[in-house]
Amino acid sequence: MPARPASPSRRNLPPSVSIREVGPRDGLQNEAPVPPAERARLVRALADAGCRSIEAVSFVSERAVPAMAGAAEVIALVSRGDGGPSGRRSTSGGSELRLTALVPNLRGAERAIEAGVAALTVTISASAAYNDKNVRMTIEESLREIESVAGLAAGQGMAVDAVVSCSFGSPFEGEIDPGEVAGLAARLAEAGCSDLTFADTTGVASPRRLDAVLSALEARTGRAARDVGLHLHDTRGTALVNAWAAMEAGVRRFDTSLGGLGGSPFAPGAGGNLATEDLVGLLDDVGVATGIRLSALLKAGSLARDLVGHALAGRTMSALEGSARAY
Amino acid sequence: MPARPASPSRRNLPPSVSIREVGPRDGLQNEAPVPPAERARLVRALADAGCRSIEAVSFVSERAVPAMAGAAEVIALVSRGDGGPSGRRSTSGGSELRLTALVPNLRGAERAIEAGVAALTVTISASAAYNDKNVRMTIEESLREIESVAGLAAGQGMAVDAVVSCSFGSPFEGEIDPGEVAGLAARLAEAGCSDLTFADTTGVASPRRLDAVLSALEARTGRAARDVGLHLHDTRGTALVNAWAAMEAGVRRFDTSLGGLGGSPFAPGAGGNLATEDLVGLLDDVGVATGIRLSALLKAGSLARDLVGHALAGRTMSALEGSARAY
Repeated sequence: MPARPASPSRRNLPPSVSIREVGPRDGLQNEAPVPPAERARLVRALADAGCRSIEAVSFVSERAVPAMAGAAEVIALVSRGDGGPSGRRSTSGGSELRLTALVPNLRGAERAIEAGVAALTVTISASAAYNDKNVRMTIEESLREIESVAGLAAGQGMAVDAVVSCSFGSPFEGEIDPGEVAGLAARLAEAGCSDLTFADTTGVASPRRLDAVLSALEARTGRAARDVGLHLHDTRGTALVNAWAAMEAGVRRFDTSLGGLGGSPFAPGAGGNLATEDLVGLLDDVGVATGIRLSALLKAGSLARDLVGHALAGRTMSALEGSARAY
Repeated sequence: MPARPASPSRRNLPPSVSIREVGPRDGLQNEAPVPPAERARLVRALADAGCRSIEAVSFVSERAVPAMAGAAEVIALVSRGDGGPSGRRSTSGGSELRLTALVPNLRGAERAIEAGVAALTVTISASAAYNDKNVRMTIEESLREIESVAGLAAGQGMAVDAVVSCSFGSPFEGEIDPGEVAGLAARLAEAGCSDLTFADTTGVASPRRLDAVLSALEARTGRAARDVGLHLHDTRGTALVNAWAAMEAGVRRFDTSLGGLGGSPFAPGAGGNLATEDLVGLLDDVGVATGIRLSALLKAGSLARDLVGHALAGRTMSALEGSARAY
């Protein structure tokens, strides 16, 4: 009796997923400031590894977030690589590099557009308490700010991705009603956001919570899982299993961070993002394409570690170091 | 339009899985020796948390593995709890506690039976090179030793679980032909082993490799995934996603280790077992019963940490500590 074919066919996995690398923004914003030229070098190393979508910077107050100072310079340095406009830099693979920026408000959006990024990211929280602590606004105030950003971007034909933090729970309110999260998603689309990403800010997502939010979204807006991005944190070591479960549920776009950079500096190793190389390693093994070359990604990881000056949380890197020590 | 029901129904998850806690054996064998009375205290704490199957000790050479010295004493001390015979100790939940022991050979099996354990575990590697390094025997020699152990156990009506290490790959041979792994499983059944567990000794498993081995097993022996145990290591942070994928493929029995104890002392945090509390936390959330109470398990984890004198790799514990520091 012949063995049945192994996955992905048996498991009905997609042929590919797309990854937005957020390490230079979500990762480095929590670190001691790295000079713009070095951040541009890291972005280039990621692009060379095959990352096609990179959240390179945020245009926030340089006083509030010193690690993100010089955002326009980072974009200019990377774009200068071959003079491509709008943060786009053609690569040997032929596909276009999209540099994106997080913007907190209209002023940030203006600066990002002037700098020449390809798309904007805005954030809002499904948790009223978290939104207040993070940006000192009510959810209604955040929606109005986002509407103004989206209006500006629309005039430039530019995409705006709304990242909904605490979509699967909050340290303040606990689990948040999936219907409320879906309702917020609907309002973000009405406000003019072209894209939508659910973020698991404190690492409390599970396959059940993912299913509940995705189901509520489809019921409320008709939007399917394949049209949603997912931004996972690895606080409880569940980021990879959640990415897997989300992929099974139809999600095709993920935010990840090189080396698992990110999270609170007060809880080392406990709160970082899903590590890009951990997801790429898993997907490589099961035959789901990402366009990213793991070996080149690990070189970028070495650079990132040098820039931040400490070990990274990503498990693939520490496993390779462990085996290097053991043999 | 009402939201569709969330998992587990939608995902067709099982109502329950069984967990064999291996921390007192697979975990503590890699640590500085802990006195038998303290190891018995840890086993009792695990039993009190609802663990019904605990690999408490191994009956190996005390000179070769000093951390496992006093194995019979550990079994006696736990069993004495209420005088139950054969390592069985009835609990408030009414179900029986099964203390099991790893035995490397016939002499170890005799000692384990004399000590009164409920079942035996034997190991063999799908990797000839690993088998040689681990027990200095060829696979044929290991099979003969296991046959003699299984013969002895059969005379006592005692179960023998054959754990096949490196089932999904080896540091020496790389990926191992699933047909070979299935062939070894068939020979272990012929040798008299009642149970079978595939071990991912170096953390190289993936959903694809799991599917391939399970398919080859069913093709070769007719044995289904629900009749196989899985012993996962978290070297690359993939233990939890592999457990999830295995559960989807029909596996219903897992080895886990409190706090993720285990693995090489030369690569800290890089090689431990799948942490019991991480799996229980995930399964609690999605509604798959384990019979284990997470809060009591975390208390046992504190005890384990005190006994070994260092932080544990399990992510649930470090996440809770992180939040305790953050708020």
